[in-house]
Amino acid sequence: MNKNEKKSSWKEKLHEIIYEADTKQGKLFDVALLIAIIASILLVMLESVESFDNEYHDFLNIGEWIITIFFTIEYIIRIISIRKPFKYIFSFYGVIDLLSTIPKYLSFILIGSQSLVALRALRLLRVFRILKLARYIGASNKLLLALKSSRAKIAVFLFFVLIVCVILGTVMYMIEGAENGFTNIPKSIYWAIVTLTTVGFGDIAPQTPLGQLIASVIMILGYSIIAIPTGIVSSEMTKADEDIDTNTQSCPTCLKEKHKKNATFCYNCGSILN
Amino acid sequence: MNKNEKKSSWKEKLHEIIYEADTKQGKLFDVALLIAIIASILLVMLESVESFDNEYHDFLNIGEWIITIFFTIEYIIRIISIRKPFKYIFSFYGVIDLLSTIPKYLSFILIGSQSLVALRALRLLRVFRILKLARYIGASNKLLLALKSSRAKIAVFLFFVLIVCVILGTVMYMIEGAENGFTNIPKSIYWAIVTLTTVGFGDIAPQTPLGQLIASVIMILGYSIIAIPTGIVSSEMTKADEDIDTNTQSCPTCLKEKHKKNATFCYNCGSILN
Amino acid sequence: MNKNEKKSSWKEKLHEIIYEADTKQGKLFDVALLIAIIASILLVMLESVESFDNEYHDFLNIGEWIITIFFTIEYIIRIISIRKPFKYIFSFYGVIDLLSTIPKYLSFILIGSQSLVALRALRLLRVFRILKLARYIGASNKLLLALKSSRAKIAVFLFFVLIVCVILGTVMYMIEGAENGFTNIPKSIYWAIVTLTTVGFGDIAPQTPLGQLIASVIMILGYSIIAIPTGIVSSEMTKADEDIDTNTQSCPTCLKEKHKKNATFCYNCGSILN
Amino acid sequence: MNKNEKKSSWKEKLHEIIYEADTKQGKLFDVALLIAIIASILLVMLESVESFDNEYHDFLNIGEWIITIFFTIEYIIRIISIRKPFKYIFSFYGVIDLLSTIPKYLSFILIGSQSLVALRALRLLRVFRILKLARYIGASNKLLLALKSSRAKIAVFLFFVLIVCVILGTVMYMIEGAENGFTNIPKSIYWAIVTLTTVGFGDIAPQTPLGQLIASVIMILGYSIIAIPTGIVSSEMTKADEDIDTNTQSCPTCLKEKHKKNATFCYNCGSILN
Repeated sequence: MNKNEKKSSWKEKLHEIIYEADTKQGKLFDVALLIAIIASILLVMLESVESFDNEYHDFLNIGEWIITIFFTIEYIIRIISIRKPFKYIFSFYGVIDLLSTIPKYLSFILIGSQSLVALRALRLLRVFRILKLARYIGASNKLLLALKSSRAKIAVFLFFVLIVCVILGTVMYMIEGAENGFTNIPKSIYWAIVTLTTVGFGDIAPQTPLGQLIASVIMILGYSIIAIPTGIVSSEMTKADEDIDTNTQSCPTCLKEKHKKNATFCYNCGSILN
Repeated sequence: MNKNEKKSSWKEKLHEIIYEADTKQGKLFDVALLIAIIASILLVMLESVESFDNEYHDFLNIGEWIITIFFTIEYIIRIISIRKPFKYIFSFYGVIDLLSTIPKYLSFILIGSQSLVALRALRLLRVFRILKLARYIGASNKLLLALKSSRAKIAVFLFFVLIVCVILGTVMYMIEGAENGFTNIPKSIYWAIVTLTTVGFGDIAPQTPLGQLIASVIMILGYSIIAIPTGIVSSEMTKADEDIDTNTQSCPTCLKEKHKKNATFCYNCGSILN
Repeated sequence: MNKNEKKSSWKEKLHEIIYEADTKQGKLFDVALLIAIIASILLVMLESVESFDNEYHDFLNIGEWIITIFFTIEYIIRIISIRKPFKYIFSFYGVIDLLSTIPKYLSFILIGSQSLVALRALRLLRVFRILKLARYIGASNKLLLALKSSRAKIAVFLFFVLIVCVILGTVMYMIEGAENGFTNIPKSIYWAIVTLTTVGFGDIAPQTPLGQLIASVIMILGYSIIAIPTGIVSSEMTKADEDIDTNTQSCPTCLKEKHKKNATFCYNCGSILN
Repeated sequence: MNKNEKKSSWKEKLHEIIYEADTKQGKLFDVALLIAIIASILLVMLESVESFDNEYHDFLNIGEWIITIFFTIEYIIRIISIRKPFKYIFSFYGVIDLLSTIPKYLSFILIGSQSLVALRALRLLRVFRILKLARYIGASNKLLLALKSSRAKIAVFLFFVLIVCVILGTVMYMIEGAENGFTNIPKSIYWAIVTLTTVGFGDIAPQTPLGQLIASVIMILGYSIIAIPTGIVSSEMTKADEDIDTNTQSCPTCLKEKHKKNATFCYNCGSILN
């Protein structure tokens, strides 16, 4: 029993370190993890640069091994220390962690070029580990709240943009046709999006006068309607600011509202606020 | 007479289902229509992708038939169930519905490549059916109101943008000339729009130092004045928010409305608000 | 004397028609002028399109003559009807009007290709006639006021943008060098502006990894700082709105301010506002 | 002693002229410096334009000498006139001033093409002298305050943008691959930034349908999220305006400040404000 207790407490301690960030060790672990994640991402990137890979292959290989082992240990500890291991294993992060850790070990078993491609694909999943860093932003910040509250309006906006792009893309396909690079409707819609969002790659560009006229309309449209999402977020954030600056209580005497956060007396009738 | 009544009621029921969305069947019909429209658009798109068309021609053909028949039935029912059929037939949607349904039937009569092109053109009109989805956005939402109220200002802005583009386009035509791709004034104006809206395809780009200098001016101009439509919409939306800030109560004496949130007395007759 | 009076009155009438827009004839003249200006611009444009010019040369020529004569008459009347003719003649519009009307007449005297080029250059000045339309916007509108009040801030912003572009352009010239299209510093600065303003022609693009890294910084910078002019104008316009919605008088009893425009009584103490 | 005094006073005078801008001479010196800096930058630019350099080499050379001597004198005076010379010498501007003044003198000692390259590199540092102009903007203006107060939020935003670009860039690398220009992950991320910021050079563009689909998502994403920094700055600036809306008077009893414009009683001690 005593032993059992000790074990559970030992487990709890691990859990605290890995899943929380309150204790000193917890913070330390987080930092270590942070570094490991960034390092692993850099490795994946550098490995994809052929010239670099050819020169420093061994260096990359060793680095890969160190990180793989680190992540392996992390993975095991996470499973041990949690009460419901399967909940973690089949969670998004659980799957990512596993899949992005395996390939290095597989590289012993599987030999051959096409299998290597598959392994690289797996290793690239590591990029999604970045999302683990996301929680350091603090999801509770005002910015996200403003976005949340304007989510519906932005959805409507995007829906509108898509419809416009579908229609204009199809129209351009009818006008320009395949000989000018508008080979099919999906591609024309792609071009309409490229143009409306003012990206303008230029890999496809209208050649006929009429096409260029409509393109001009699309561009000016895109140039103007960008005001909409901006306007939405701006007003939302302004509102969020005001809500933060004033409290919600109303004066018990004159029922005035919008008192300053630090107000003790009503700014209107002078009676005490409680 | 009884029969007559039954008929009329039967008609009304159909009308309710097709033209309204209050009843259960009405909603169901709308959903079915929605799916059919999206499916038809996807078909038109996929058919335009040659490689795809060659492989799955039969599949596309069958799909085309199913949708054509569905839309034919819809078209007939719409005519039957409405009191004034011609009002619908000659309405925008009526014409679109007819023209985009016919071609499949015509494909029996007309045979030959050039006629097929005409048919495809007709079938593409189906894209405008998307607009039917628009009503699901809810035209009454704040966003559109803000846009409406800033319509005039945006018109002025666009007028200004156009004048700038005409002048700068002409100037660039004089500086760069045909040898650098500015073959004529309309094309130069097209380029000016491409540049001012920060799209920048790059199919035409200034080569002379002076041309590049003016191009820089256009770009910085375009980069700055985008603030204007955004500013307009932002302020409009903030105002729309504030309108919600003026309280809804009406003065008990003079019945005036739109009092300031923190008003104790009516701004019009001076009687106490409670 | 009587005659003299008649004449002056006759002159005044002309002046009223041409320089003002209060009377019926005044408005009519403005509309006629508007049409003539737009027509002349379209002519200049179409003439620059070679293929079009070759086909409809005579048509363009006749149109040119009609408009030239119309503008000649306008020019003469303007001189006659105004009290201080020279003030108009040497004004911006006066010079533009003259220079853009002459060339058609000169085409008799001067014959030869190079002289034609000069004449075309003169005729293109007609484009600046568009500016005459500007007054129809109504210079007093809120939009321009907001811009005026934020002029200083925007100037600071543009100055900042220019400095950034000069420095980054020079840096890119050092990194990429002539072999990658950054042939000299002015061109590199031009590229920096193209990139910072998110236009991105793509005629010049960084090739070295380091160059692409700095380019990314420039792009994200340009993508972020566009918020500044927008923010300025937005806040200015929001302020402008508030100033318009509330009047400036303060209550004689409780000295409260920001009463609604149509307020007769103070919203706070209920005393009459006068 | 008298002499010593004189000397110190003479030093102080110089210091006043060079490091401050209160006195007439101080202002004059600043203007002269301003001109010199701009002139030197123009020289560096023009020199980099080969065609121009070949023609006016001597002119540029003389100009270079004049400016070099001017900056040498400035550098010496700055050292003499300041109390702690080393503090200036090892400051950012001190180093820049020295390094950008030396090369002309070195051109005697060092002869040879590769050394000339090094000298040019040094001379280009002169561009950073522009930053000296920055103080003329007045760091205290509202614009910068607004930016400062929204610094944190913008950092979060950029962090988010970077993560998105890393993930999407990697995904595009997996989809498009080297054959379509996405030769390695860093380059793909570079492309993602180019696209998300709506710059769109077009030197790299997706070729596969799936790639173009994801590209569309990136573009619409970039087109929408630009609203975020704009919204932040807009709301900050609106707030800055409102801070001016809270009146400046302080409560006669408790001396608290920042009362609402329409406050009759102190929000802190409840005594009447007058």
